[in-house]
Amino acid sequence: MSIYLDHAASTPLRESAREAWLAAATLTGNASSVHGAGQAARRLLEHSRERIAAVLDCDPIEVVLTSGGTESINLALKGLWWGRADDREAVLLPDGEHHASIDTVDWLRARGARVRAVALDPVGRIPLDGFRTALTAPAPAALATALVANNEVGTVQDAAQLAAAAAAADVPLHLDAVAAMGHLPVSFSAWRGGAAPGVGLVALSVSGHKVGAPVGTGAVVVSRHARIAALLHGGGQQRGLRSGTQDIAGAAALAVALEDAEAERVSEHERLVALGDRLWSGIRAAIPAAELLGDARDRLAGNVHVHLPGAVGETMLFLLDQEGISVSTGSACQAGVAEPSHVVLALGRDQDVARSVLRLTLGRTTVTSDVDALLAALPRAYARATSAARPRRLGAAGMQPS
Amino acid sequence: MSIYLDHAASTPLRESAREAWLAAATLTGNASSVHGAGQAARRLLEHSRERIAAVLDCDPIEVVLTSGGTESINLALKGLWWGRADDREAVLLPDGEHHASIDTVDWLRARGARVRAVALDPVGRIPLDGFRTALTAPAPAALATALVANNEVGTVQDAAQLAAAAAAADVPLHLDAVAAMGHLPVSFSAWRGGAAPGVGLVALSVSGHKVGAPVGTGAVVVSRHARIAALLHGGGQQRGLRSGTQDIAGAAALAVALEDAEAERVSEHERLVALGDRLWSGIRAAIPAAELLGDARDRLAGNVHVHLPGAVGETMLFLLDQEGISVSTGSACQAGVAEPSHVVLALGRDQDVARSVLRLTLGRTTVTSDVDALLAALPRAYARATSAARPRRLGAAGMQPS
Repeated sequence: MSIYLDHAASTPLRESAREAWLAAATLTGNASSVHGAGQAARRLLEHSRERIAAVLDCDPIEVVLTSGGTESINLALKGLWWGRADDREAVLLPDGEHHASIDTVDWLRARGARVRAVALDPVGRIPLDGFRTALTAPAPAALATALVANNEVGTVQDAAQLAAAAAAADVPLHLDAVAAMGHLPVSFSAWRGGAAPGVGLVALSVSGHKVGAPVGTGAVVVSRHARIAALLHGGGQQRGLRSGTQDIAGAAALAVALEDAEAERVSEHERLVALGDRLWSGIRAAIPAAELLGDARDRLAGNVHVHLPGAVGETMLFLLDQEGISVSTGSACQAGVAEPSHVVLALGRDQDVARSVLRLTLGRTTVTSDVDALLAALPRAYARATSAARPRRLGAAGMQPS
Repeated sequence: MSIYLDHAASTPLRESAREAWLAAATLTGNASSVHGAGQAARRLLEHSRERIAAVLDCDPIEVVLTSGGTESINLALKGLWWGRADDREAVLLPDGEHHASIDTVDWLRARGARVRAVALDPVGRIPLDGFRTALTAPAPAALATALVANNEVGTVQDAAQLAAAAAAADVPLHLDAVAAMGHLPVSFSAWRGGAAPGVGLVALSVSGHKVGAPVGTGAVVVSRHARIAALLHGGGQQRGLRSGTQDIAGAAALAVALEDAEAERVSEHERLVALGDRLWSGIRAAIPAAELLGDARDRLAGNVHVHLPGAVGETMLFLLDQEGISVSTGSACQAGVAEPSHVVLALGRDQDVARSVLRLTLGRTTVTSDVDALLAALPRAYARATSAARPRRLGAAGMQPS
């Protein structure tokens, strides 16, 4: 028996997305080909693009299909950096962002970018004042990026306010909606508002496998007036922003998954909040010292990120895994050594706390018995983990949260 | 009834690859996750990587999975440029390469690279002397790239000799094996030979959908000693060379497709050579002025690239499409205006010739009746096309050969 409480890392493929993929994958033809087979493929592709645009509330031509969240974020950040028309040199990167943003910005730093941080508040929110200041002082930033909702602790930002601040400061903003998609209302148009061309919200990233589409699918919405350069060069597909033969089956599956996720978003929210409450109440009852990290109210439904004092996260993960329960620490473990979570550190907590967290994320397939199974296994695992002295060594290399 | 003679643009998904994709796509779990579900996913991923490595004759750790040929080529060329340890500034780019290489190198040119061309001979071969000279004169190149086989005219290069020349010149070489894969024996190890670390053949690109795997899959073999930087930054997957959640289903499908393509390569070669001969003989009989471009002997099996004097390629394409036959001109048509083929121009032919070509590419699903249907339709289409005065305007934008 296997209990999967790691939906934030990857959520199972939807039946509807699988069927859409299969139907489209049997079509023969490259959407760039002029002949009938190619044009039939192209029609399906553009129909999928329209459906994706309808969910994300943008123009179809603004949808750039990618291989996933990481590529979307890399294209947005590097593309905006390369595409900027002036000599601005600051990149605004709040603390606690996903590694796809952190590592991309680090790479830009080695190429002349100055990185401007914004400290999070103790529950993981980006303070609007701090964000506004960083946008313009001492000089306007070349670009800014922010998570719509944190992938580890689940804290939800006020995306509309962040976008308005960027627009007011004349700075182009990328929003990483990978973790938020399917959980929150995501509207490129509404968040963009009446911003002038090329500033405010100009790019928004989503990933397929976080909403039940196949791994290897994703998109970045790019405003038609954004000053942005391409990351992949070649055949000039997708406004020249993302060359490469377009993945029609992936696009069809992504369209269906996004539509279905959006259609059930409100009811799933209610269900997952209730399951999450049951989970957190049970944890607190079993382990009174446990602490919920992130914002208690404005958080992703189904995200229960807990600090379990004295229990190393990796130890808990292994002990629960032995009971057939999949959870995450949310922390990177590189080369087999457990690292403290950079997100928890960004909440102002110390290394001990950042090593003693578990991220439990519920999703579409989670049922009450899954929650109860975790609650049944947790006390014993906690007792064993708190009697263990040091972090265990892990076997595999290069493991990362997603 | 539909006759598909454009396998070089995209070849139908193999049943075996579809099944492998389906089986793997039902697994839940991110290969970067530490728990059992993640590690089961990781095992399947690494098993697929081993199978891909076995076909490409390299070490599994050298296989970097990508979203396709374009990303593979972009990673190889930009990565080698960024990763070079010295201040060499020349990039060796033979004439007539694929646009993924041309446009990537153009982008590098705007960032300080000097582009060093090598003219092709009249059948599309890269002259070894010219290649050797360009590698070192006036100074050693930072990197070199070359097609193993040309995707338009089908001419096959001597990859081993190109790699040996690069090794002797102390220059890192990328080979684009996208069009060659499945048609020719491809061996990274054999072509790399005893080259010193970091020079000679260090990277080799392949695409999934050219061998019957899904669109959106591909790989680039990167020698473990290559000095190369990443294109996508983030979670640090795949030796840090290609961050992003790994597409396990795509990898499984790619592995099966490569294995099957390799297993039937010799028999398919024989079959496609016979079908191609039948096609070319028939064309020549019907249109005595027709001319086969590319190398008559050392060419991809199933590639019949013909110059049809006086008939605009796009016109032929549309007329044949009306008969339900899908072919390609092999030429880019940007913004609705037919462009002459840059490959045909690189053979030293003029614009008239470069506008009057058809690329017919046979593949796994092609049968004799497909060839005969083309031969039946061709004379009438040719008669109509040669009576038409000017190129037609095309409806859709951004169409490219693949």
